[in-house]
Amino acid sequence: MRSLLLASLLFSSFAHADEGMWTFDNFPSDQVAKTYNFKPEQPWLDKVRLSSARLAQGCSASFVSAQGLVMTNHHCAHSCIEQLSDPKHDYIKDGFYAKTGAEERRCPEMEVNQLQSIADVTPRMEEVTKGKEGKDFAQAQKAEMAKIKQECAKDENIRCDVVTLYEGGRYALYQYRRFQDVRLVFAPEFSIAFFGGDPYNFTFPRYNLDLAFVRIYDKGKPIKMDNFFPFSQDGAKEGELVFVSGHPGRTSRESSIAELTFDRDYNLPRRIAYASEQRGIITEFQRRGVEAKRISNEMLFGVENSLKAMKGQHAALAEANFFAAKVKQEEELRAKIASKKELKDQYAGAWDKIAAAVKQTRDISDRYTMIEGARGFDSDLFRMARRLVRYSDEQKKPNEERLREYVDASIPELKQSLFSEAPIYDEMEKLRLSFGLTKLREILGAGDPFVQKVLGKKSPDQLATELVKGSKLKSVAERKKLFEGGAAAIKASRDPMIMLALAVDPEARSLRRVMDEDITSQINKGHEMIAKSRFALYGTSIYPDATFTLRLSYGAVAGTVEGDKKVPAITQIGGVYDLHTGEDPFALPPSWIKNRNAVRGEVPMNFASNNDIIGGNSGSPVINQKAEIVGLIFDGNIWSLGGRYGFDPKLNRAVSVHSSAIIESLDKVYKAKPLVNELVPKAATH
Amino acid sequence: MRSLLLASLLFSSFAHADEGMWTFDNFPSDQVAKTYNFKPEQPWLDKVRLSSARLAQGCSASFVSAQGLVMTNHHCAHSCIEQLSDPKHDYIKDGFYAKTGAEERRCPEMEVNQLQSIADVTPRMEEVTKGKEGKDFAQAQKAEMAKIKQECAKDENIRCDVVTLYEGGRYALYQYRRFQDVRLVFAPEFSIAFFGGDPYNFTFPRYNLDLAFVRIYDKGKPIKMDNFFPFSQDGAKEGELVFVSGHPGRTSRESSIAELTFDRDYNLPRRIAYASEQRGIITEFQRRGVEAKRISNEMLFGVENSLKAMKGQHAALAEANFFAAKVKQEEELRAKIASKKELKDQYAGAWDKIAAAVKQTRDISDRYTMIEGARGFDSDLFRMARRLVRYSDEQKKPNEERLREYVDASIPELKQSLFSEAPIYDEMEKLRLSFGLTKLREILGAGDPFVQKVLGKKSPDQLATELVKGSKLKSVAERKKLFEGGAAAIKASRDPMIMLALAVDPEARSLRRVMDEDITSQINKGHEMIAKSRFALYGTSIYPDATFTLRLSYGAVAGTVEGDKKVPAITQIGGVYDLHTGEDPFALPPSWIKNRNAVRGEVPMNFASNNDIIGGNSGSPVINQKAEIVGLIFDGNIWSLGGRYGFDPKLNRAVSVHSSAIIESLDKVYKAKPLVNELVPKAATH
Repeated sequence: MRSLLLASLLFSSFAHADEGMWTFDNFPSDQVAKTYNFKPEQPWLDKVRLSSARLAQGCSASFVSAQGLVMTNHHCAHSCIEQLSDPKHDYIKDGFYAKTGAEERRCPEMEVNQLQSIADVTPRMEEVTKGKEGKDFAQAQKAEMAKIKQECAKDENIRCDVVTLYEGGRYALYQYRRFQDVRLVFAPEFSIAFFGGDPYNFTFPRYNLDLAFVRIYDKGKPIKMDNFFPFSQDGAKEGELVFVSGHPGRTSRESSIAELTFDRDYNLPRRIAYASEQRGIITEFQRRGVEAKRISNEMLFGVENSLKAMKGQHAALAEANFFAAKVKQEEELRAKIASKKELKDQYAGAWDKIAAAVKQTRDISDRYTMIEGARGFDSDLFRMARRLVRYSDEQKKPNEERLREYVDASIPELKQSLFSEAPIYDEMEKLRLSFGLTKLREILGAGDPFVQKVLGKKSPDQLATELVKGSKLKSVAERKKLFEGGAAAIKASRDPMIMLALAVDPEARSLRRVMDEDITSQINKGHEMIAKSRFALYGTSIYPDATFTLRLSYGAVAGTVEGDKKVPAITQIGGVYDLHTGEDPFALPPSWIKNRNAVRGEVPMNFASNNDIIGGNSGSPVINQKAEIVGLIFDGNIWSLGGRYGFDPKLNRAVSVHSSAIIESLDKVYKAKPLVNELVPKAATH
Repeated sequence: MRSLLLASLLFSSFAHADEGMWTFDNFPSDQVAKTYNFKPEQPWLDKVRLSSARLAQGCSASFVSAQGLVMTNHHCAHSCIEQLSDPKHDYIKDGFYAKTGAEERRCPEMEVNQLQSIADVTPRMEEVTKGKEGKDFAQAQKAEMAKIKQECAKDENIRCDVVTLYEGGRYALYQYRRFQDVRLVFAPEFSIAFFGGDPYNFTFPRYNLDLAFVRIYDKGKPIKMDNFFPFSQDGAKEGELVFVSGHPGRTSRESSIAELTFDRDYNLPRRIAYASEQRGIITEFQRRGVEAKRISNEMLFGVENSLKAMKGQHAALAEANFFAAKVKQEEELRAKIASKKELKDQYAGAWDKIAAAVKQTRDISDRYTMIEGARGFDSDLFRMARRLVRYSDEQKKPNEERLREYVDASIPELKQSLFSEAPIYDEMEKLRLSFGLTKLREILGAGDPFVQKVLGKKSPDQLATELVKGSKLKSVAERKKLFEGGAAAIKASRDPMIMLALAVDPEARSLRRVMDEDITSQINKGHEMIAKSRFALYGTSIYPDATFTLRLSYGAVAGTVEGDKKVPAITQIGGVYDLHTGEDPFALPPSWIKNRNAVRGEVPMNFASNNDIIGGNSGSPVINQKAEIVGLIFDGNIWSLGGRYGFDPKLNRAVSVHSSAIIESLDKVYKAKPLVNELVPKAATH
């Protein structure tokens, strides 16, 4: 089916109606007003921005009460829920509900960000890189970014990111308030949060309660929030204008053909094969028993989710008409530039520059991914070891010269991850590390000197077992000791994981240097040129590719037509009972079975809308014109996966939990009255 | 590295020096004579043909003594070796050697074919399909093929195949002598047969003893063979002219751009992802223990081997210069045809015809593969069930109207597979079937009516377990009863696997009809047109794409240059001791360690040559001008994988066990004197 439908995609250099992940300082309010007869004004936009939240590890969220309550997806809180579980308390399987504040439990690694301000720092960035190329360009850019961040991040409660927009056409300083004391309040059972499992992932119609609540604490007490989204009384209605305020992670809509070809023919097929094998390993590992399943569920979900996403992306690029449209689009832009002397002189060389860098990427891609990307050493313990090793090196350098993840402004994240109390499971460590080492050998070759240095005469299984058994880095105290001990402590350490990280580091750093200074700098430079040519031709009435920063998208609650079948926009709770088979992933949890009669089947469950979203938007609030919660983004339909490269308003759908399903289930299934009252102060619950 | 080197590939419509998998009735003897000063004459060619053998399940082999001894690869006899093993006798791990004829054990499913004659049946085939398209074309072709085969196959000891050559430009009747009583004589340990395992697969230099001997029996006694290859005294020498006589499986060098694009963007990426996941499942399954490893080794090898092959094929197509050369080649041919009115009228429409059929393929590809291809029901028991169900249907029809695998001439293969005593392992059946059903649901969708019909309310694991537990088809007697009982017995059967096969059959047959009649017929027709246009333009001095029929290729024993490193053509036995780590897959078996001092390290082990081969050539004899064995093909180097689509004489290498390594190891490691004497009657062994 896909092949027939995607062919209808149209492309232009301007956004379609309802297309776009807009920044808050360049939102097309007039365009919205023209289509929907509602114009978002500045105070409205400010309130929405301040009521929105980001989970620093890769999701979106929103403030939903004055007492610091934050709503996100179950799958965004999955790590935390799993980290708080143990063999005797499986909160993934059984759900979690803190009836009182005292029962709310701190997530070991969750960080919530609230966007305070956006400032344009393009002139500063351009000033320092002017006339520079390659290594000089990369170093000047890195240094200036570190400087800007340091000036901005006055204390650990402020997070500052210098964001590259329009692929290098603009730079903005995003200042966030940072919250690291985040506690789990409520999560339903995995089986209803992810009802239908992988087979239903990225499809619509759906019936998921992909929901979790956490609460922000400050000095041991729930924080007081001035800005939050109240729940709407009725929730989303078919045809209604809705907004999604969230943090789309990454799109490549402005990528050049050289980059898209690399994705289609090289990058995606390899990553898909890699993840597929990983999926097989974990699937069979889960058959070892209940505990094996519990400790590997998070990883399986992650792998399956990204696998499906990548397959969708590849399918979009493999669509001949889609790709041809992309080629045509680039040819047209290049022709326009070539026709104007001034533009030609400045920008015509951009594509060759990028193509040359992409070729270089391809040459080192395998080594880079396995060694510097650490895929060959896939293990939490190794990651800790590398961070400790690098931190001990980097802290000695001036701030501007450090690797970007070790500048002063990044230390709070580093410390959070290093000192996390999250459990590390030996069996999972061995499974992942052995797989990583096997692939390292396979991909770089058994005869490669680096591989031989790492493995010696050992097999991947053998080495992985020895490393995991021998390392003491599972202990937070041990990690603190090494962190505080600096270079001397690292040098003196006989921990095998530290020694491995040390042994690997020269090669890893050398690859990193090539990637940062020779390749990425060229690609950035090329994209800066393209972006400027587009500004010159089309102005700035365009939105930038997604960068995991706050964006606002608008659209309508709308179904789709698949073949000759009309798919309604909204599903009802009753549907989940029809689909219940009793067998995973179509098995309802006991709470839902028990309360079947209490739940009103006609209450809306999930809905589709044509908001332009992508991975990273998970957990985004869906709001109406009154800035009330009408839904909670948790997925897209199958067509949304091509959204990485282009948006099709006819087919592409965001998928949300309906706000009414949230209230209904909290009330009728989970009997969580206090939570309902917090969300809907004057709740007329039935 | 690959990206730089493949770019040097050149293309033309004519064969390169040393390129080509030539049929025995169109061998370029003059061309060989011109390059190598040796001209193979007809008696030489006849002797080589009759001394060559095919393993019907997908390999090549050769007769190497007057007493019916057949040499092939260990990996070609792997199934047999595993089928003869049991939990207490692991001949894969420990090797097998029958010191006397009485100890030689029959392989349950091996069939050896010896090519007796080739006859051109193109006029007959063209006569019946003249002017026909689609369904009519397909049915006429099928009927005529069935007729030709029936006329030819007078008894069960004669096997007749109508072979499509030049992708439909020519049809030939290949008549074989068929041998089904094939007994295992010798196999070394897996660890030396496949030393280096998957990491070394498709690489060179190598150190493998990928060797097995079987013997043909007739009426309980070793058969007497008039034609066989004696062993050369010294074996292959660097630079020497050598021939490979074997059965290359499938190349796609004449495929149209539409087909290559389908392979690059759709077919290969999906198959690679599928096999990768399967590989992960089996890898982790093997960790269950020794017995799990034993019963899944064959499958793991098969999956890893085809995975690596597919990745190599995809890499070749993903090479921009390579693909561009293919595009140019097609454009040139089309331009030439367009420039001559007569050719244009007849053949210009071929490419559009193929492209339309490829598009249709893509639309049904997933369903076809999962349902008719039975990937969704991956299980030996299901395959048996389907064959029984279909045989009971098909035998009632006239011979010409049956599915091709059920015509009278195909019954011997059918019976061999159905009545095989090879063990079937419940755990493997469940593993494979559960995976198949999971993919069936994933790929067709959980909501698909066919999927719902198959699964009902059950999970894939649950259904797989029930089917495997409930079926009695593991019993040969049960299968015989159903085979002989015909349609009535099938209808009366309550065996769950039979019932599943019955339930699935209408949909499967309908897909088969669409594929055969609407799609394949169009592709065949298109290729017939292209082939004829090429004959008209270039004559018949070209070789046809591989079709798992006997071909002869010539070339020289030659090393390669990788980067700036010269790789010598021949390795020595001593190298294997240097690479021995004691850890799988670099662990030598006890026999090799024990006899280390007896083995002469300087004896040649493996060698590379630039013969044009592909999968299916495994087990082919490498012979010198005197038609003596100088080596045994077992692999190609990494560049050979692109050989599916084109041949690069500079890089592409066939990899063989050197004949001296065979004699040396039989003599010094395995103390197999009688075998050595049979191979080298006047052996001057040291």
